[in-house]
Amino acid sequence: MAGLVQIFTGDGKGKTSAALGAAMRAAGHGLRVHITFFMKGDYPYGEHDSLALLPGVTAARFGQREFVDPRNVRPEEREQAGQALEDARRAAFSGEYDLVILDEVNVAAAWKLIDVDDVVRLIRGRPEKVELILTGRYADQKLVEAADLVTEMREIKHPYGKGVPSRKGFEY
Amino acid sequence: MAGLVQIFTGDGKGKTSAALGAAMRAAGHGLRVHITFFMKGDYPYGEHDSLALLPGVTAARFGQREFVDPRNVRPEEREQAGQALEDARRAAFSGEYDLVILDEVNVAAAWKLIDVDDVVRLIRGRPEKVELILTGRYADQKLVEAADLVTEMREIKHPYGKGVPSRKGFEY
Repeated sequence: MAGLVQIFTGDGKGKTSAALGAAMRAAGHGLRVHITFFMKGDYPYGEHDSLALLPGVTAARFGQREFVDPRNVRPEEREQAGQALEDARRAAFSGEYDLVILDEVNVAAAWKLIDVDDVVRLIRGRPEKVELILTGRYADQKLVEAADLVTEMREIKHPYGKGVPSRKGFEY
Repeated sequence: MAGLVQIFTGDGKGKTSAALGAAMRAAGHGLRVHITFFMKGDYPYGEHDSLALLPGVTAARFGQREFVDPRNVRPEEREQAGQALEDARRAAFSGEYDLVILDEVNVAAAWKLIDVDDVVRLIRGRPEKVELILTGRYADQKLVEAADLVTEMREIKHPYGKGVPSRKGFEY
């Protein structure tokens, strides 16, 4: 059966978490999963230790630790994002994975760290059976068009109007 | 620090997955997590095998295998949902967990398998440090009011207008 291309986007919480949960569910059924983190740097995200426990799941992280300033992108940030896309592409074409997750790729494309057309090419050119999940705010209309299933995480209520305190174990 | 009460609701995909991803992240930081599945029955959901691999994570499942008909709720369905709520309450008050997930509790309350006021009481009465995540469509306004952070998963694009094929490893 052909794999779908799913996008989780929007300003609300739960985009990366939903992708991680999907990885967990897939791994629980013996499917093989690769996750490419586009913009996580070396921050000690709790999910990495957990991911390592799941059989059939691999992950690779790219990006700097510092937050990217979209008005002033540095060359090394572009290079890292390009490497991330190459990593995801290799996984999708390897025949070794049923599901490939491109975490924060939407943001990387929106901020022009990578060319959105390259992501569209990956989506359209991949082996048909490979499922893809793309996460991140600002999903480009071209990505939405190329995807099968797009979900927006919408903030309905927030404790402080904006910005959750970043709490270890919860937000990262 | 006080725990938050988060809700993932809406018609879109990713509500349970986001909760599972949150569990994974929390477990990766050594936090202790309990997940009460309100309406999963004994369906072979892939996440269960994966959950069992995560240290500090426990789970309990309630509900029948058959889908509940909200216009014709059976007594055993009410009983199962009541047991699920009791299970979640026990976990939240035990002092043994940092995060308690009530999966599909919103639906159980909307369909009156349980009294929404009992859920509100659990939210308001719990030990302050315990984080709660409630998932499911149809989150009652009382739950939204009692929560700190509410996210709606909204379907933006769907392959068939409605209803994804239920694919092992992806939808369950």
